[in-house]
Amino acid sequence: MVKLIAIYKKPENVEEFDKHYKEVHAPLAEKMPGLLKLEVNKIYGSPAGDSNLHLIAEMYFETKEALMNALSSPEGKAAGKDLMGFAGKVVSMHFAEVV
Amino acid sequence: MVKLIAIYKKPENVEEFDKHYKEVHAPLAEKMPGLLKLEVNKIYGSPAGDSNLHLIAEMYFETKEALMNALSSPEGKAAGKDLMGFAGKVVSMHFAEVV
Repeated sequence: MVKLIAIYKKPENVEEFDKHYKEVHAPLAEKMPGLLKLEVNKIYGSPAGDSNLHLIAEMYFETKEALMNALSSPEGKAAGKDLMGFAGKVVSMHFAEVV
Repeated sequence: MVKLIAIYKKPENVEEFDKHYKEVHAPLAEKMPGLLKLEVNKIYGSPAGDSNLHLIAEMYFETKEALMNALSSPEGKAAGKDLMGFAGKVVSMHFAEVV
């Protein structure tokens, strides 16, 4: 099992971000071919108090190839374009293999 | 469901880090009371090529209270002390609620 992990730092306007994420971005991401599950983790703090992060979204795929195919698909490109538009300044993306 | 998420940037010595994580730290973390699951995600890249991250470890708990109890338990304190010793410079910790 592999994951595409999107780590979002706190956005300037949390309400606007959350609305766009839920109503526009998540539905686009969920259209990616081969996606098994989208799990959204909402950050609510840290052992030190506040966290600098807002969300960690995990998109599960069966294999590394399935993940790459999803990203290069029209649906993946549409999700990527939307992502850069509303969260380009706060997001980082990572590929992970579940050990 | 809530998670304690540990995000590790690439350590200076990956081999030494991996050995300590697997042989010492993960067994300590797994002793925390109330821990339902420890899932280790090994980062292998990003859409841009390399990633600055090495691991993302997710520790699952039933409730926010269970997570806080785990951290303040003797087992949680032992895991935290070990963590600061071998990964203090590369780790950040976050509390998350699965949406």
